[in-house]
Amino acid sequence: MQPSRNLTMMTDLYQLTMMYGYYKKGMAGNRAVFDMFFRKRVGESAYALVAGLEQLIEYIENLSFSPEDIDYLRSLHLFDEEFLHVLEGLRFTGDIDAMPEGTVAFPSEPLVRVNAPVMEAQFIETALLNIVNHQTLIATKASRVVLAAQGTNVLEFGLRRAQGPDAGIYGARAAIIGGCTSTSNVLTGQMFGIPVAGTHAHSWVMSFPDELSAFRAYAEIFPQNCLLLVDTYDTLRSGMPNAITVFKELRARGYEPTGIRLDSGDLAYLSKQARRMMDEAGFPNAKVVASNDLDERSIYDLRAQGACIDVWGVGTRLITSDDYPALGGVYKMCAEEKDGVIYPRIKISENVEKITNPGIKDVHRLYERATGKAIADLITLHDETLDETKPLMIFDPSQPWKRMTVEDFTSRQLLAPIFRNGRCVYRSPKLLDIQAHAKAELASFWEEYTRLTKPHTYKVDLSQKLYDLKERLLEQGAPHEFTAE
Amino acid sequence: MQPSRNLTMMTDLYQLTMMYGYYKKGMAGNRAVFDMFFRKRVGESAYALVAGLEQLIEYIENLSFSPEDIDYLRSLHLFDEEFLHVLEGLRFTGDIDAMPEGTVAFPSEPLVRVNAPVMEAQFIETALLNIVNHQTLIATKASRVVLAAQGTNVLEFGLRRAQGPDAGIYGARAAIIGGCTSTSNVLTGQMFGIPVAGTHAHSWVMSFPDELSAFRAYAEIFPQNCLLLVDTYDTLRSGMPNAITVFKELRARGYEPTGIRLDSGDLAYLSKQARRMMDEAGFPNAKVVASNDLDERSIYDLRAQGACIDVWGVGTRLITSDDYPALGGVYKMCAEEKDGVIYPRIKISENVEKITNPGIKDVHRLYERATGKAIADLITLHDETLDETKPLMIFDPSQPWKRMTVEDFTSRQLLAPIFRNGRCVYRSPKLLDIQAHAKAELASFWEEYTRLTKPHTYKVDLSQKLYDLKERLLEQGAPHEFTAE
Repeated sequence: MQPSRNLTMMTDLYQLTMMYGYYKKGMAGNRAVFDMFFRKRVGESAYALVAGLEQLIEYIENLSFSPEDIDYLRSLHLFDEEFLHVLEGLRFTGDIDAMPEGTVAFPSEPLVRVNAPVMEAQFIETALLNIVNHQTLIATKASRVVLAAQGTNVLEFGLRRAQGPDAGIYGARAAIIGGCTSTSNVLTGQMFGIPVAGTHAHSWVMSFPDELSAFRAYAEIFPQNCLLLVDTYDTLRSGMPNAITVFKELRARGYEPTGIRLDSGDLAYLSKQARRMMDEAGFPNAKVVASNDLDERSIYDLRAQGACIDVWGVGTRLITSDDYPALGGVYKMCAEEKDGVIYPRIKISENVEKITNPGIKDVHRLYERATGKAIADLITLHDETLDETKPLMIFDPSQPWKRMTVEDFTSRQLLAPIFRNGRCVYRSPKLLDIQAHAKAELASFWEEYTRLTKPHTYKVDLSQKLYDLKERLLEQGAPHEFTAE
Repeated sequence: MQPSRNLTMMTDLYQLTMMYGYYKKGMAGNRAVFDMFFRKRVGESAYALVAGLEQLIEYIENLSFSPEDIDYLRSLHLFDEEFLHVLEGLRFTGDIDAMPEGTVAFPSEPLVRVNAPVMEAQFIETALLNIVNHQTLIATKASRVVLAAQGTNVLEFGLRRAQGPDAGIYGARAAIIGGCTSTSNVLTGQMFGIPVAGTHAHSWVMSFPDELSAFRAYAEIFPQNCLLLVDTYDTLRSGMPNAITVFKELRARGYEPTGIRLDSGDLAYLSKQARRMMDEAGFPNAKVVASNDLDERSIYDLRAQGACIDVWGVGTRLITSDDYPALGGVYKMCAEEKDGVIYPRIKISENVEKITNPGIKDVHRLYERATGKAIADLITLHDETLDETKPLMIFDPSQPWKRMTVEDFTSRQLLAPIFRNGRCVYRSPKLLDIQAHAKAELASFWEEYTRLTKPHTYKVDLSQKLYDLKERLLEQGAPHEFTAE
């Protein structure tokens, strides 16, 4: 097993300089509340599929500086001994609420809410963003690839093109959350108890005097997992006939072949021919696996052209989310406690989309009772409650005259308690259970919101109380937004 | 310090199934030679800056399966006990040659050459590609960003948007190789002894009743590193005047300010105004640091418009290489030894660019003696030698009638011995020495080859002997390419 890693030092230096500042100004114990959220669509996706919480919990639980870390920080000549001593004892003592992994989230919704002494809340920003941004990005991308595959299986095998070991290991984890059925990554399989898959490469075929003997050797050794890569020389004139010869020999030995893999050429044409050849030879159950720089768009198009592909091997473009390689999640202060009083905080910007939602907030998802489908999300202040028995008027915060009354609905809070007073109160589900949750989550949305291209924008509204608070703080203007409620 | 990580299980399952196949067929001891190379430009860059060798060495040296790993592999029901026992004792016993980190490389050149028993050579493929692909990608991107900055400093601070912890940690390492002067990533600073940088975020300013008291507090605590973020409310009407007030107070205490940071708005306009305001107030040495989704293109354009920016903070777009997030390096068998005879191997493909160069090869860089500038690279067979005293005729392998005679040249072999019989014979330089090497390497090329946009294609030619071998193998056709020389 991989030892649990201590990533305490994986932070931006400015977190430490700010912590030192808070400490020196006697502000270290003030509680602050931060929201982690993203501001806009995840590339072309209207939604994000939340992932990474299990690793965030691990990070928080392992948080502590070693004596070597303190020595290193001392060597920077930025901090005094008293502060270094404080760091030696630093642990996370606060509260964290977060959307469980596999939850569908939308722009401006808090995915994670941290309520802790400002020093601690500030410190964990960088690692929190790193972990949640990455896995959420890849889970989202994977969910789109899986959607395009429309029920056929997607195998993740991008490890060799991932941005370093963790991007491969945790990227594969996130890909499973997004709906991939297996990964080629043995370590991820071991760490998270998920199916691993893989057969052979071109080099196997090249190591034998000819393709047929390479196939025969493979079938001899793996009679129960005989999937043959048929494009080393010539797919239709050499690879397929040789594969079928070996499949017949395999059947004579009492085994059924798994199928063939295509890794180059036109996958629509070749898959149809390969399918026809295997059907005619009496192997209608042998699968066609395809790979070669696939993503949700190529899979969608290939399926639209009737490609006979049962399993999609997806590598580079999934594991790097190549068309949108960073989620862009941010972590902003939304409230601060001074002398026992909570003050909402807002970040004002000339760029309207960068203005934050102030105060300690919850996220509620409203469902139409008749269909069980999600209607809209409502961000409220933490002390508000929703009454499902009464019609609820919601409105678009950027166009408040666009109002809608919701009746006959159910609702659900999306943030769950994860840490209380520094103690983890949440148990991460098994990875395949998270995958099942994600699937149910996605199924609770009308297809308009999960469409690959130009999906409809899902409503994320503010409660009247939150909207009024935000307006009041905005009207007071900077820097007076720091006035108490 | 971070414990050295064992990434043995970080591999594609098919490496293990192929190894099992080689083992069962009695081929496990056959030596094979593999080249790691990339096929085409790195996005718009004509070259790649090699990085990751130090971590590759660490991976190879730590290679070994734990009893838990073997138990896990047993649970897959793919392998027999005898083979699992072989895996228990698996170590790398072969030879590796590689381009030292910081070397400039071009498409189709071997960056790494592995000569080992086929089981070992096959096994290390995935991790080797993962590590070298990632760091080479980021070092290359960083070198372009640094080039655009034309002598002004580039600070790497992408950790929060990196694709997981390693992408942040080793991406920052690669960014330093590419020429960044510092990173915000404290762990990378600690691990590799490189400068770390950072001051404060908007949340610092938001934690005080007003901007001026936030700046004052910061200056009080960090009088020697007083760099103030001035765009929390209004850069020119609030941030700059407040910063200058604090700078004057600081000077009265006997300190000089470091400068200001801009993180939004039009950086050309704001930097000129900020520069003018600081100059007029008597702070001509205070620096302007700028950030906000920067990359080589925006830096180039901002400089072209006369932006007064001394330091560029570059995050997301560098750490993810966002316009080209995967290098696409591959690992292909080029020779195989059977019964003591070495047979060259070629991978034939209908896609001409996927045809490989056969045989055990070296890479020579030719320099014009008069200028010291690189003229062309020549890939030769390993047993060839270059005679610098005689004119050398080289030709474009795709257009062999385009011939050129090189005279008065010096040459250098780019591959260095890294492992011999499983023992590391190479000592990785310190990171800042690698950075210096990379800088010298880049300086040895005419600017035409390093230009940001549409750089000229650098010549990578094949020796006559290698060209003839390749032609002969191609003419023999598949699968007859497996005939001996």
